[in-house]
Amino acid sequence: VSKFLDKLTAAAKGQACCLCVGLDPDPGKFPAHLKEKGAGAISEFNRAVIDATKDLAAVYKPNLAFYEAHGETGLRALSETLAHIPSEIVTIGDAKRGDIGNSAKQYARALFDGLGFDAVTVNPYMGTDCVLPFLEYADRGVIVLVLTSNPGSADFQRHHHLFLRVVEMAAEWNKSGNVGIVVGAQHPEELAKIRLLAGDMPILVPGVGAQGGDLAAVIEAGKGKEPGRLLVNVSRGILYASSGVDFADASRKAAEDLVGRMKDGD
Amino acid sequence: VSKFLDKLTAAAKGQACCLCVGLDPDPGKFPAHLKEKGAGAISEFNRAVIDATKDLAAVYKPNLAFYEAHGETGLRALSETLAHIPSEIVTIGDAKRGDIGNSAKQYARALFDGLGFDAVTVNPYMGTDCVLPFLEYADRGVIVLVLTSNPGSADFQRHHHLFLRVVEMAAEWNKSGNVGIVVGAQHPEELAKIRLLAGDMPILVPGVGAQGGDLAAVIEAGKGKEPGRLLVNVSRGILYASSGVDFADASRKAAEDLVGRMKDGD
Repeated sequence: VSKFLDKLTAAAKGQACCLCVGLDPDPGKFPAHLKEKGAGAISEFNRAVIDATKDLAAVYKPNLAFYEAHGETGLRALSETLAHIPSEIVTIGDAKRGDIGNSAKQYARALFDGLGFDAVTVNPYMGTDCVLPFLEYADRGVIVLVLTSNPGSADFQRHHHLFLRVVEMAAEWNKSGNVGIVVGAQHPEELAKIRLLAGDMPILVPGVGAQGGDLAAVIEAGKGKEPGRLLVNVSRGILYASSGVDFADASRKAAEDLVGRMKDGD
Repeated sequence: VSKFLDKLTAAAKGQACCLCVGLDPDPGKFPAHLKEKGAGAISEFNRAVIDATKDLAAVYKPNLAFYEAHGETGLRALSETLAHIPSEIVTIGDAKRGDIGNSAKQYARALFDGLGFDAVTVNPYMGTDCVLPFLEYADRGVIVLVLTSNPGSADFQRHHHLFLRVVEMAAEWNKSGNVGIVVGAQHPEELAKIRLLAGDMPILVPGVGAQGGDLAAVIEAGKGKEPGRLLVNVSRGILYASSGVDFADASRKAAEDLVGRMKDGD
Protein backbone atom coordinates (compact mmCIF):
# COMPACT_ATOMS: atom_id res chain seq x y z
CA VAL A 1 0.00 0.00 0.00
CA SER A 2 1.33 3.42 -0.94
CA LYS A 3 1.85 6.34 1.43
CA PHE A 4 -0.82 8.16 -0.60
CA LEU A 5 -3.38 5.42 0.09
CA ASP A 6 -2.48 5.32 3.79
CA LYS A 7 -2.99 9.06 4.09
CA LEU A 8 -6.30 8.82 2.25
CA THR A 9 -7.52 6.00 4.52
CA ALA A 10 -6.65 8.02 7.62
CA ALA A 11 -8.27 11.20 6.27
CA ALA A 12 -11.48 9.25 5.51
CA LYS A 13 -12.08 8.60 9.24
CA GLY A 14 -13.92 5.37 8.53
CA GLN A 15 -16.28 6.74 5.88
CA ALA A 16 -16.63 4.86 2.56
CA CYS A 17 -17.66 8.04 0.74
CA CYS A 18 -15.72 11.20 1.55
CA LEU A 19 -15.96 14.86 0.76
CA CYS A 20 -13.44 16.42 -1.62
CA VAL A 21 -13.71 20.20 -1.72
CA GLY A 22 -12.73 21.66 -5.09
CA LEU A 23 -10.84 24.89 -4.49
CA ASP A 24 -11.62 26.62 -7.80
CA PRO A 25 -11.67 30.30 -6.83
CA ASP A 26 -13.32 32.66 -9.30
CA PRO A 27 -12.98 36.27 -8.09
CA GLY A 28 -16.04 37.21 -10.18
CA LYS A 29 -18.14 35.02 -7.86
CA PHE A 30 -16.58 36.20 -4.59
CA PRO A 31 -18.71 37.93 -1.94
CA ALA A 32 -18.95 41.69 -2.49
CA HIS A 33 -16.41 42.62 0.21
CA LEU A 34 -13.72 40.46 -1.48
CA LYS A 35 -14.72 40.93 -5.11
CA GLU A 36 -13.13 44.36 -5.39
CA LYS A 37 -9.72 42.92 -4.47
CA GLY A 38 -9.95 40.56 -7.45
CA ALA A 39 -7.28 37.87 -7.66
CA GLY A 40 -5.57 39.46 -4.66
CA ALA A 41 -8.36 37.99 -2.49
CA ILE A 42 -8.00 34.35 -3.62
CA SER A 43 -5.79 33.33 -0.75
CA GLU A 44 -8.04 35.00 1.86
CA PHE A 45 -11.16 33.43 0.30
CA ASN A 46 -9.64 29.94 0.21
CA ARG A 47 -8.32 30.17 3.76
CA ALA A 48 -11.77 31.09 5.05
CA VAL A 49 -13.33 28.12 3.22
CA ILE A 50 -10.63 25.77 4.52
CA ASP A 51 -11.05 26.97 8.11
CA ALA A 52 -14.81 26.43 7.84
CA THR A 53 -14.65 22.94 6.32
CA LYS A 54 -11.40 21.30 7.47
CA ASP A 55 -13.08 18.90 9.92
CA LEU A 56 -15.47 17.79 7.16
CA ALA A 57 -13.20 17.43 4.12
CA ALA A 58 -10.96 14.41 3.53
CA VAL A 59 -9.48 16.02 0.42
CA TYR A 60 -8.93 19.51 -1.00
CA LYS A 61 -8.57 19.71 -4.77
CA PRO A 62 -7.36 22.99 -6.29
CA ASN A 63 -7.85 23.11 -10.06
CA LEU A 64 -4.73 24.76 -11.47
CA ALA A 65 -6.62 26.64 -14.21
CA PHE A 66 -8.13 29.00 -11.62
CA TYR A 67 -4.68 29.99 -10.37
CA GLU A 68 -2.81 30.11 -13.69
CA ALA A 69 -5.48 32.51 -15.00
CA HIS A 70 -4.06 35.15 -12.63
CA GLY A 71 -0.36 34.71 -13.41
CA GLU A 72 2.11 35.24 -10.55
CA THR A 73 -0.61 36.50 -8.20
CA GLY A 74 -2.60 33.31 -8.74
CA LEU A 75 0.36 31.01 -8.27
CA ARG A 76 1.34 32.75 -5.04
CA ALA A 77 -2.26 32.30 -3.85
CA LEU A 78 -2.01 28.59 -4.68
CA SER A 79 1.15 28.19 -2.58
CA GLU A 80 -0.44 30.09 0.31
CA THR A 81 -3.57 27.95 0.04
CA LEU A 82 -1.59 24.71 0.11
CA ALA A 83 0.39 25.93 3.13
CA HIS A 84 -2.90 26.54 4.95
CA ILE A 85 -4.31 23.02 4.45
CA PRO A 86 -3.82 20.84 7.58
CA SER A 87 -1.15 18.22 6.88
CA GLU A 88 -3.45 15.26 7.58
CA ILE A 89 -5.83 16.24 4.75
CA VAL A 90 -5.05 14.91 1.27
CA THR A 91 -4.34 17.44 -1.50
CA ILE A 92 -5.03 16.67 -5.16
CA GLY A 93 -3.60 18.99 -7.80
CA ASP A 94 -6.28 18.96 -10.48
CA ALA A 95 -3.97 19.69 -13.39
CA LYS A 96 -5.07 17.05 -15.94
CA ARG A 97 -1.60 17.07 -17.46
CA GLY A 98 -0.47 14.66 -20.16
CA ASP A 99 2.65 14.96 -22.29
CA ILE A 100 5.57 12.88 -23.60
CA GLY A 101 7.92 11.45 -20.96
CA ASN A 102 10.50 14.20 -21.23
CA SER A 103 7.83 16.87 -20.55
CA ALA A 104 5.70 14.80 -18.16
CA LYS A 105 8.77 14.53 -15.95
CA GLN A 106 8.86 18.33 -15.72
CA TYR A 107 5.15 18.51 -14.89
CA ALA A 108 5.59 15.87 -12.17
CA ARG A 109 8.45 17.90 -10.79
CA ALA A 110 6.33 21.10 -10.77
CA LEU A 111 3.34 19.46 -9.08
CA PHE A 112 4.98 17.01 -6.66
CA ASP A 113 8.36 18.58 -5.82
CA GLY A 114 7.45 22.23 -6.37
CA LEU A 115 3.88 22.51 -5.14
CA GLY A 116 3.98 19.40 -2.95
CA PHE A 117 0.62 17.85 -3.87
CA ASP A 118 -0.19 14.40 -2.43
CA ALA A 119 -1.78 13.45 -5.75
CA VAL A 120 -2.47 14.84 -9.21
CA THR A 121 -4.97 14.22 -11.99
CA VAL A 122 -3.57 13.14 -15.36
CA ASN A 123 -5.04 12.90 -18.86
CA PRO A 124 -4.47 9.44 -20.38
CA TYR A 125 -4.88 10.33 -24.09
CA MET A 126 -1.14 10.15 -24.88
CA GLY A 127 -0.69 6.71 -23.28
CA THR A 128 1.51 4.80 -20.83
CA ASP A 129 4.86 6.56 -21.27
CA CYS A 130 3.17 9.88 -20.43
CA VAL A 131 1.87 8.56 -17.11
CA LEU A 132 5.06 6.75 -16.01
CA PRO A 133 6.96 9.86 -14.81
CA PHE A 134 4.10 10.57 -12.39
CA LEU A 135 3.87 6.92 -11.27
CA GLU A 136 7.57 6.98 -10.37
CA TYR A 137 6.63 9.10 -7.38
CA ALA A 138 5.40 5.93 -5.63
CA ASP A 139 4.44 7.82 -2.45
CA ARG A 140 2.08 10.13 -4.39
CA GLY A 141 -1.27 9.48 -6.04
CA VAL A 142 -1.90 9.54 -9.80
CA ILE A 143 -5.57 9.92 -10.67
CA VAL A 144 -6.43 9.12 -14.26
CA LEU A 145 -9.35 10.67 -16.19
CA VAL A 146 -11.68 7.85 -17.27
CA LEU A 147 -15.21 9.12 -17.89
CA THR A 148 -15.68 12.81 -17.08
CA SER A 149 -18.74 14.71 -15.88
CA ASN A 150 -19.23 16.98 -18.91
CA PRO A 151 -21.39 16.45 -22.03
CA GLY A 152 -18.24 16.12 -24.17
CA SER A 153 -17.36 12.90 -22.34
CA ALA A 154 -19.51 11.19 -25.00
CA ASP A 155 -17.35 12.45 -27.89
CA PHE A 156 -14.23 10.32 -27.46
CA GLN A 157 -14.30 8.58 -24.05
CA ARG A 158 -17.27 6.47 -25.17
CA HIS A 159 -15.77 5.74 -28.61
CA HIS A 160 -15.95 1.92 -28.67
CA HIS A 161 -15.92 1.93 -24.83
CA LEU A 162 -12.49 3.57 -24.71
CA PHE A 163 -13.10 4.49 -21.05
CA LEU A 164 -13.14 0.81 -20.08
CA ARG A 165 -9.80 0.32 -21.83
CA VAL A 166 -8.45 3.25 -19.77
CA VAL A 167 -9.65 1.56 -16.56
CA GLU A 168 -7.86 -1.65 -17.55
CA MET A 169 -4.65 0.25 -18.23
CA ALA A 170 -4.98 2.21 -14.97
CA ALA A 171 -5.23 -1.12 -13.14
CA GLU A 172 -2.02 -2.23 -14.91
CA TRP A 173 -0.29 1.02 -13.95
CA ASN A 174 -1.23 0.44 -10.30
CA LYS A 175 1.86 -1.59 -9.34
CA SER A 176 2.69 0.70 -6.40
CA GLY A 177 -0.93 1.00 -5.27
CA ASN A 178 -0.92 4.73 -6.02
CA VAL A 179 -3.36 4.97 -8.94
CA GLY A 180 -6.91 6.33 -8.83
CA ILE A 181 -9.46 7.23 -11.49
CA VAL A 182 -12.00 9.97 -12.28
CA VAL A 183 -15.60 9.05 -13.13
CA GLY A 184 -18.29 11.75 -13.36
CA ALA A 185 -21.46 11.52 -11.26
CA GLN A 186 -23.50 11.62 -14.49
CA HIS A 187 -22.67 7.98 -15.22
CA PRO A 188 -23.87 5.79 -12.29
CA GLU A 189 -24.38 2.68 -14.45
CA GLU A 190 -20.88 2.88 -15.87
CA LEU A 191 -19.54 3.69 -12.41
CA ALA A 192 -20.81 0.33 -11.10
CA LYS A 193 -19.13 -1.48 -14.00
CA ILE A 194 -15.92 0.53 -13.50
CA ARG A 195 -15.84 -0.26 -9.75
CA LEU A 196 -15.89 -3.98 -10.60
CA LEU A 197 -12.99 -3.58 -13.06
CA ALA A 198 -11.01 -1.19 -10.85
CA GLY A 199 -11.05 -3.19 -7.62
CA ASP A 200 -10.57 -0.96 -4.59
CA MET A 201 -8.77 1.89 -6.36
CA PRO A 202 -9.86 5.35 -5.22
CA ILE A 203 -12.50 6.84 -7.51
CA LEU A 204 -12.82 10.61 -7.64
CA VAL A 205 -16.32 11.69 -8.65
CA PRO A 206 -16.95 15.24 -9.88
CA GLY A 207 -20.35 16.41 -11.07
CA VAL A 208 -22.46 16.31 -7.90
CA GLY A 209 -23.74 19.79 -7.01
CA ALA A 210 -23.59 22.52 -9.71
CA GLN A 211 -23.43 19.82 -12.40
CA GLY A 212 -26.47 17.96 -11.01
CA GLY A 213 -25.34 14.34 -10.39
CA ASP A 214 -27.26 12.10 -7.95
CA LEU A 215 -25.22 11.51 -4.77
CA ALA A 216 -27.15 8.43 -3.55
CA ALA A 217 -26.76 6.70 -6.93
CA VAL A 218 -23.02 7.51 -6.94
CA ILE A 219 -22.52 5.98 -3.48
CA GLU A 220 -24.55 2.88 -4.34
CA ALA A 221 -22.55 2.31 -7.52
CA GLY A 222 -19.12 3.53 -6.53
CA LYS A 223 -18.20 2.81 -2.93
CA GLY A 224 -15.22 0.58 -2.27
CA LYS A 225 -14.27 -1.84 0.52
CA GLU A 226 -11.85 0.37 2.46
CA PRO A 227 -12.75 3.83 3.75
CA GLY A 228 -11.96 6.75 1.45
CA ARG A 229 -12.10 4.87 -1.82
CA LEU A 230 -14.98 7.02 -3.10
CA LEU A 231 -14.21 10.75 -3.15
CA VAL A 232 -17.09 12.99 -4.11
CA ASN A 233 -15.94 16.42 -5.24
CA VAL A 234 -18.04 19.55 -4.84
CA SER A 235 -16.61 22.91 -5.85
CA ARG A 236 -19.14 25.64 -6.69
CA GLY A 237 -21.87 24.19 -4.40
CA ILE A 238 -19.60 24.78 -1.40
CA LEU A 239 -17.48 27.79 -2.42
CA TYR A 240 -20.40 29.94 -3.55
CA ALA A 241 -23.10 28.74 -1.14
CA SER A 242 -23.60 32.39 -0.20
CA SER A 243 -22.43 35.64 -1.78
CA GLY A 244 -22.64 37.52 1.52
CA VAL A 245 -20.13 38.22 4.27
CA ASP A 246 -21.31 34.91 5.80
CA PHE A 247 -19.90 32.93 2.84
CA ALA A 248 -17.64 30.73 4.99
CA ASP A 249 -20.51 29.77 7.33
CA ALA A 250 -22.63 28.97 4.30
CA SER A 251 -19.78 26.84 2.87
CA ARG A 252 -19.68 24.93 6.14
CA LYS A 253 -23.44 24.32 6.09
CA ALA A 254 -23.28 23.07 2.50
CA ALA A 255 -20.38 20.77 3.40
CA GLU A 256 -22.18 19.48 6.54
CA ASP A 257 -25.26 18.72 4.49
CA LEU A 258 -23.20 16.80 1.93
CA VAL A 259 -21.26 14.81 4.55
CA GLY A 260 -24.54 13.94 6.27
CA ARG A 261 -25.96 12.62 3.02
CA MET A 262 -22.71 10.70 2.38
CA LYS A 263 -23.07 8.93 5.76
CA ASP A 264 -26.76 8.15 5.16
CA GLY A 265 -25.89 6.75 1.74
CA ASP A 266 -23.29 4.34 3.14
CA VAL B 1 -9.53 32.97 -42.73
CA SER B 2 -8.47 33.66 -39.16
CA LYS B 3 -5.85 36.16 -38.05
CA PHE B 4 -3.86 33.16 -36.79
CA LEU B 5 -3.82 31.57 -40.25
CA ASP B 6 -2.85 34.87 -41.90
CA LYS B 7 0.06 35.28 -39.53
CA LEU B 8 1.14 31.69 -40.16
CA THR B 9 1.00 32.15 -43.94
CA ALA B 10 3.13 35.29 -43.73
CA ALA B 11 5.66 33.68 -41.37
CA ALA B 12 6.00 30.71 -43.77
CA LYS B 13 7.54 32.96 -46.49
CA GLY B 14 6.20 30.75 -49.25
CA GLN B 15 7.42 27.42 -47.85
CA ALA B 16 4.98 24.49 -47.63
CA CYS B 17 6.96 22.92 -44.79
CA CYS B 18 8.21 25.26 -42.08
CA LEU B 19 10.45 25.03 -39.07
CA CYS B 20 8.94 25.19 -35.60
CA VAL B 21 11.58 25.47 -32.87
CA GLY B 22 10.50 23.86 -29.62
CA LEU B 23 11.76 26.02 -26.75
CA ASP B 24 11.98 23.31 -24.06
CA PRO B 25 14.87 24.52 -21.90
CA ASP B 26 16.39 21.94 -19.57
CA PRO B 27 19.09 23.57 -17.42
CA GLY B 28 20.70 20.14 -16.93
CA LYS B 29 21.53 20.12 -20.65
CA PHE B 30 22.76 23.73 -20.87
CA PRO B 31 26.35 24.50 -21.91
CA ALA B 32 28.74 24.48 -18.96
CA HIS B 33 28.97 28.28 -18.64
CA LEU B 34 25.16 28.53 -18.18
CA LYS B 35 24.53 25.27 -16.33
CA GLU B 36 25.74 26.62 -12.99
CA LYS B 37 23.08 29.36 -13.08
CA GLY B 38 20.37 26.68 -13.33
CA ALA B 39 16.85 27.92 -14.03
CA GLY B 40 18.15 31.49 -13.74
CA ALA B 41 19.80 30.99 -17.16
CA ILE B 42 16.66 29.87 -19.07
CA SER B 43 15.88 33.31 -20.40
CA GLU B 44 19.47 33.97 -21.53
CA PHE B 45 19.67 30.53 -23.18
CA ASN B 46 16.38 30.98 -25.03
CA ARG B 47 17.24 34.49 -26.18
CA ALA B 48 20.53 33.26 -27.66
CA VAL B 49 18.72 30.46 -29.52
CA ILE B 50 16.05 32.88 -30.78
CA ASP B 51 18.64 35.41 -31.99
CA ALA B 52 20.48 32.64 -33.84
CA THR B 53 17.39 31.13 -35.53
CA LYS B 54 14.81 33.88 -35.96
CA ASP B 55 15.29 34.24 -39.72
CA LEU B 56 14.83 30.46 -40.11
CA ALA B 57 11.92 29.69 -37.79
CA ALA B 58 8.28 30.33 -38.73
CA VAL B 59 7.12 29.26 -35.27
CA TYR B 60 8.50 29.07 -31.73
CA LYS B 61 6.80 26.59 -29.43
CA PRO B 62 7.61 26.74 -25.71
CA ASN B 63 6.36 23.67 -23.83
CA LEU B 64 4.96 24.96 -20.55
CA ALA B 65 6.18 21.96 -18.53
CA PHE B 66 9.77 23.18 -18.82
CA TYR B 67 8.87 26.54 -17.28
CA GLU B 68 6.38 25.37 -14.64
CA ALA B 69 9.04 22.97 -13.32
CA HIS B 70 10.95 26.03 -12.04
CA GLY B 71 8.07 27.86 -10.37
CA GLU B 72 8.12 31.66 -10.43
CA THR B 73 11.63 31.75 -11.94
CA GLY B 74 10.48 29.58 -14.82
CA LEU B 75 7.34 31.59 -15.48
CA ARG B 76 9.28 34.84 -15.50
CA ALA B 77 11.70 33.25 -18.01
CA LEU B 78 8.72 32.29 -20.18
CA SER B 79 7.43 35.87 -20.24
CA GLU B 80 10.89 37.20 -21.05
CA THR B 81 11.28 34.61 -23.81
CA LEU B 82 7.94 35.52 -25.38
CA ALA B 83 8.83 39.22 -25.22
CA HIS B 84 12.03 38.46 -27.16
CA ILE B 85 10.33 36.64 -30.07
CA PRO B 86 9.92 38.96 -33.12
CA SER B 87 6.24 39.85 -33.53
CA GLU B 88 5.97 38.40 -37.05
CA ILE B 89 6.88 34.88 -35.85
CA VAL B 90 4.02 32.66 -34.65
CA THR B 91 4.10 31.47 -31.02
CA ILE B 92 2.44 28.23 -29.94
CA GLY B 93 1.97 27.57 -26.22
CA ASP B 94 2.45 23.82 -25.98
CA ALA B 95 0.28 23.32 -22.91
CA LYS B 96 -1.88 20.35 -23.97
CA ARG B 97 -4.66 21.53 -21.68
CA GLY B 98 -8.12 19.96 -21.53
CA ASP B 99 -10.74 20.52 -18.83
CA ILE B 100 -14.47 21.22 -18.43
CA GLY B 101 -15.73 24.51 -19.87
CA ASN B 102 -15.57 26.41 -16.61
CA SER B 103 -11.89 25.52 -16.15
CA ALA B 104 -10.94 25.56 -19.84
CA LYS B 105 -12.04 29.20 -19.91
CA GLN B 106 -9.47 29.95 -17.20
CA TYR B 107 -6.72 28.12 -19.10
CA ALA B 108 -7.61 30.03 -22.29
CA ARG B 109 -7.41 33.24 -20.30
CA ALA B 110 -3.98 32.30 -18.88
CA LEU B 111 -2.51 31.30 -22.25
CA PHE B 112 -4.11 33.84 -24.62
CA ASP B 113 -4.79 36.93 -22.48
CA GLY B 114 -2.04 36.42 -19.89
CA LEU B 115 0.87 35.00 -21.87
CA GLY B 116 -0.33 36.23 -25.27
CA PHE B 117 0.31 33.10 -27.36
CA ASP B 118 -0.87 33.13 -30.99
CA ALA B 119 -1.95 29.50 -30.61
CA VAL B 120 -2.07 26.69 -28.04
CA THR B 121 -2.14 22.91 -28.10
CA VAL B 122 -5.16 21.20 -26.50
CA ASN B 123 -5.92 17.63 -25.45
CA PRO B 124 -9.22 16.41 -26.94
CA TYR B 125 -9.96 13.53 -24.50
CA MET B 126 -12.70 15.42 -22.63
CA GLY B 127 -14.60 16.41 -25.79
CA THR B 128 -16.15 19.40 -27.55
CA ASP B 129 -17.24 21.55 -24.60
CA CYS B 130 -13.63 21.51 -23.33
CA VAL B 131 -12.29 22.91 -26.62
CA LEU B 132 -14.97 25.57 -27.16
CA PRO B 133 -13.56 28.15 -24.70
CA PHE B 134 -10.31 28.13 -26.69
CA LEU B 135 -12.12 28.28 -30.05
CA GLU B 136 -13.96 31.40 -28.91
CA TYR B 137 -10.68 33.27 -29.34
CA ALA B 138 -11.30 33.29 -33.11
CA ASP B 139 -8.11 35.24 -33.82
CA ARG B 140 -5.93 32.59 -32.10
CA GLY B 141 -5.03 29.05 -33.14
CA VAL B 142 -6.21 25.89 -31.37
CA ILE B 143 -4.07 22.87 -32.19
CA VAL B 144 -5.62 19.55 -31.24
CA LEU B 145 -3.62 16.41 -30.34
CA VAL B 146 -4.52 13.67 -32.82
CA LEU B 147 -1.77 11.05 -33.07
CA THR B 148 1.29 11.86 -31.00
CA SER B 149 4.95 10.97 -31.55
CA ASN B 150 5.47 8.76 -28.48
CA PRO B 151 5.12 4.95 -28.14
CA GLY B 152 2.05 5.42 -25.90
CA SER B 153 0.15 6.90 -28.87
CA ALA B 154 -0.80 3.27 -29.63
CA ASP B 155 -2.52 2.76 -26.25
CA PHE B 156 -5.66 4.86 -26.70
CA GLN B 157 -5.33 7.06 -29.81
CA ARG B 158 -5.39 3.95 -32.03
CA HIS B 159 -8.28 2.32 -30.11
CA HIS B 160 -10.72 1.61 -32.97
CA HIS B 161 -9.09 4.46 -34.97
CA LEU B 162 -10.06 7.07 -32.37
CA PHE B 163 -7.50 9.48 -33.89
CA LEU B 164 -9.52 9.63 -37.12
CA ARG B 165 -12.64 10.51 -35.12
CA VAL B 166 -10.64 13.32 -33.50
CA VAL B 167 -9.65 14.65 -36.95
CA GLU B 168 -13.31 14.64 -38.01
CA MET B 169 -14.31 16.55 -34.89
CA ALA B 170 -11.41 19.01 -35.32
CA ALA B 171 -12.69 19.72 -38.83
CA GLU B 172 -16.16 20.40 -37.36
CA TRP B 173 -14.64 22.71 -34.73
CA ASN B 174 -12.88 24.68 -37.50
CA LYS B 175 -15.72 27.15 -38.18
CA SER B 176 -13.45 30.19 -37.69
CA GLY B 177 -10.54 28.66 -39.61
CA ASN B 178 -8.39 28.63 -36.47
CA VAL B 179 -7.98 24.90 -35.79
CA GLY B 180 -4.86 22.82 -36.37
CA ILE B 181 -3.83 19.29 -35.41
CA VAL B 182 -0.79 17.42 -34.05
CA VAL B 183 0.45 14.27 -35.81
CA GLY B 184 3.77 12.69 -34.85
CA ALA B 185 6.46 12.08 -37.48
CA GLN B 186 6.39 8.37 -36.57
CA HIS B 187 3.16 7.86 -38.50
CA PRO B 188 3.68 8.90 -42.17
CA GLU B 189 1.00 6.53 -43.54
CA GLU B 190 -1.62 7.86 -41.14
CA LEU B 191 -0.40 11.41 -41.81
CA ALA B 192 -1.31 11.05 -45.51
CA LYS B 193 -4.79 9.79 -44.57
CA ILE B 194 -5.19 12.58 -42.01
CA ARG B 195 -4.17 15.26 -44.54
CA LEU B 196 -6.99 14.08 -46.82
CA LEU B 197 -9.54 14.26 -43.98
CA ALA B 198 -8.22 17.54 -42.57
CA GLY B 199 -8.13 19.58 -45.76
CA ASP B 200 -5.65 22.44 -45.54
CA MET B 201 -5.62 22.75 -41.73
CA PRO B 202 -2.15 23.36 -40.26
CA ILE B 203 -0.53 20.13 -39.09
CA LEU B 204 2.12 20.37 -36.39
CA VAL B 205 4.55 17.44 -36.56
CA PRO B 206 6.77 16.63 -33.58
CA GLY B 207 9.12 13.65 -33.54
CA VAL B 208 11.70 14.55 -36.18
CA GLY B 209 15.16 14.87 -34.63
CA ALA B 210 15.73 13.37 -31.16
CA GLN B 211 12.71 11.11 -31.64
CA GLY B 212 13.93 9.86 -35.03
CA GLY B 213 11.10 10.55 -37.52
CA ASP B 214 11.82 10.74 -41.30
CA LEU B 215 11.53 14.33 -42.55
CA ALA B 216 11.19 13.51 -46.28
CA ALA B 217 8.35 11.05 -45.59
CA VAL B 218 6.61 13.63 -43.40
CA ILE B 219 6.76 16.29 -46.14
CA GLU B 220 5.57 13.87 -48.82
CA ALA B 221 2.60 12.80 -46.68
CA GLY B 222 1.72 15.97 -44.86
CA LYS B 223 2.25 19.10 -46.90
CA GLY B 224 -0.78 21.28 -47.60
CA LYS B 225 -1.77 23.60 -50.45
CA GLU B 226 -0.98 26.96 -48.83
CA PRO B 227 2.42 27.81 -47.36
CA GLY B 228 2.91 27.06 -43.66
CA ARG B 229 0.35 24.29 -43.36
CA LEU B 230 2.99 21.75 -42.35
CA LEU B 231 4.98 22.74 -39.27
CA VAL B 232 7.82 20.44 -38.34
CA ASN B 233 8.93 20.88 -34.76
CA VAL B 234 12.44 20.22 -33.54
CA SER B 235 13.39 20.90 -29.94
CA ARG B 236 16.39 18.99 -28.59
CA GLY B 237 18.05 18.66 -32.01
CA ILE B 238 18.37 22.44 -32.20
CA LEU B 239 18.63 23.53 -28.55
CA TYR B 240 21.37 21.07 -27.62
CA ALA B 241 23.25 20.86 -30.93
CA SER B 242 26.38 21.74 -28.97
CA SER B 243 27.16 21.83 -25.26
CA GLY B 244 29.95 24.37 -25.70
CA VAL B 245 30.05 28.16 -25.60
CA ASP B 246 29.22 28.03 -29.33
CA PHE B 247 25.77 26.51 -28.61
CA ALA B 248 23.85 29.28 -30.39
CA ASP B 249 25.97 28.95 -33.57
CA ALA B 250 25.44 25.19 -33.46
CA SER B 251 21.67 25.75 -33.04
CA ARG B 252 21.73 27.94 -36.13
CA LYS B 253 23.61 25.32 -38.15
CA ALA B 254 21.15 22.60 -37.11
CA ALA B 255 18.23 24.87 -38.02
CA GLU B 256 19.81 25.80 -41.38
CA ASP B 257 20.31 22.13 -42.18
CA LEU B 258 16.67 21.36 -41.36
CA VAL B 259 15.30 24.29 -43.37
CA GLY B 260 17.47 23.25 -46.33
CA ARG B 261 16.06 19.72 -46.18
CA MET B 262 12.53 21.15 -45.87
CA LYS B 263 13.01 23.14 -49.08
CA ASP B 264 14.48 20.12 -50.92
CA GLY B 265 11.55 18.00 -49.78
CA ASP B 266 8.94 20.39 -51.18
